[in-house]
Amino acid sequence: MDILKQMILNKGRVVNEDILKVDSFLNHQVDYHLMKEIGSEFFNYFKKYNITKVFTIESSGIAPAIMTASEFKVPMVILKKQKPNTLDTNFYQTPVKSFTKQSMYNLTLSKDYISENDRILIIDDFLANGEAAKGAIKLIENAGACVAGIGIVIEKSFQPGREILDKAGYVVYSLARINSLKNNKIEFID
Amino acid sequence: MDILKQMILNKGRVVNEDILKVDSFLNHQVDYHLMKEIGSEFFNYFKKYNITKVFTIESSGIAPAIMTASEFKVPMVILKKQKPNTLDTNFYQTPVKSFTKQSMYNLTLSKDYISENDRILIIDDFLANGEAAKGAIKLIENAGACVAGIGIVIEKSFQPGREILDKAGYVVYSLARINSLKNNKIEFID
Repeated sequence: MDILKQMILNKGRVVNEDILKVDSFLNHQVDYHLMKEIGSEFFNYFKKYNITKVFTIESSGIAPAIMTASEFKVPMVILKKQKPNTLDTNFYQTPVKSFTKQSMYNLTLSKDYISENDRILIIDDFLANGEAAKGAIKLIENAGACVAGIGIVIEKSFQPGREILDKAGYVVYSLARINSLKNNKIEFID
Repeated sequence: MDILKQMILNKGRVVNEDILKVDSFLNHQVDYHLMKEIGSEFFNYFKKYNITKVFTIESSGIAPAIMTASEFKVPMVILKKQKPNTLDTNFYQTPVKSFTKQSMYNLTLSKDYISENDRILIIDDFLANGEAAKGAIKLIENAGACVAGIGIVIEKSFQPGREILDKAGYVVYSLARINSLKNNKIEFID
C-alpha cells in the first residue's frame, strides 16, 4: 500500500534493528486519512470472505479496525487486555506475552459478542512475534467461530509472526512488509 | 442524540446505581454506524471552534475520536495510560486516578504532537468523576495549548465530573446525560 509505505519512509524512525517508531501517524498521533485508506484496502482484499465481525486488540488496532468495520458494515469487537469490571463470568480469556513490554496480559472476550456462525477478520497495527494474533485466534476458535482473515498494518517480516500464521494456514494480508531495519534503513519486501 | 439514547435504553444494562454497562455497542463490541453518527454530531456542535486536533484517552474513546477527527479532517492523538517504550524523554505526564479500576495511571503525551497554537477537542466515552478529563486538560494546558471543547458520549450527570468542568469554564457537550440509574432505571436529563 503505497501511501502507507511513503508515510513509513517519510515519518517513521528506526529506533534499533527491531523497533520502528511510527507514533506520528499510527500509534500515538493517528492520521485520519490513512485510517480511512486502510479501511478501504482491507475491505477490498477481504470482501469475498463473508466477514461478519472485525476484531482487534486494544489499543493501537482500534482506529484502523473501526474504519475497516465501517467499510464492511459489521460490528467491531475490542479484545481487552484485562477483564473489564462490568464483565461477570461470561467470558473467554487467554494469556498473551508482550515482547515489547516484557509482560503478560490476559486477552479477554465476552461470550456475548461471538457465535459459532461468525467469520472474523482480525485487524492489528503490528505483526512481530505473532503472540497477540495467536491469542486472538485462540479466543475466536475456542468460541467455535472462524478466523476468516488477518489484516496487519505493518508486518516486521524478519520476526517470526508471519511465518507462524502462514504455516498454520491463515490468510494474512499486511499493508507494509518490512524485511529489515538494519543499518538504520527501512527495507520493504517487494 | 436520539439514536444514542435509544441504544442506551434498548441495549444498556444497569449494573448498579453507579455503573451502566454499554459494552454491546460502545466499549467492547462497537457499533460502526453509531460511531459515524457520533463523529458527525461532535463536528456539527464544535465546528465553529477552530479545532486543530482531537485528543482522546486510550482506549474506549478511540473509536468515537477517530470518527470525529475524520469529520474535522485533523489528526487524532491518543493519550497513553503508560509511557510507550519508543518514547524517550520528550513527553508530558500526569497521574490520574481511575475510580472504576481503583488504580492510578500516568497519562502520557509526546511533546511532538502538541503545540501552543493547537485548539484541542477532547473526546471520551464516559464522563463520571472527571479525573481522566482533568488529566487530559492538565497535559494540554501544560503544553500551552487551548482546550477548545470537551465531547462526551455518555455523561453520568449524578457524578461530579460535569459540574467540575462547567465551573472551570470549559465547553462540554455530552451526547447523552444520565440523571440517575436508581431502581434499575435509566433516567436522562432533558
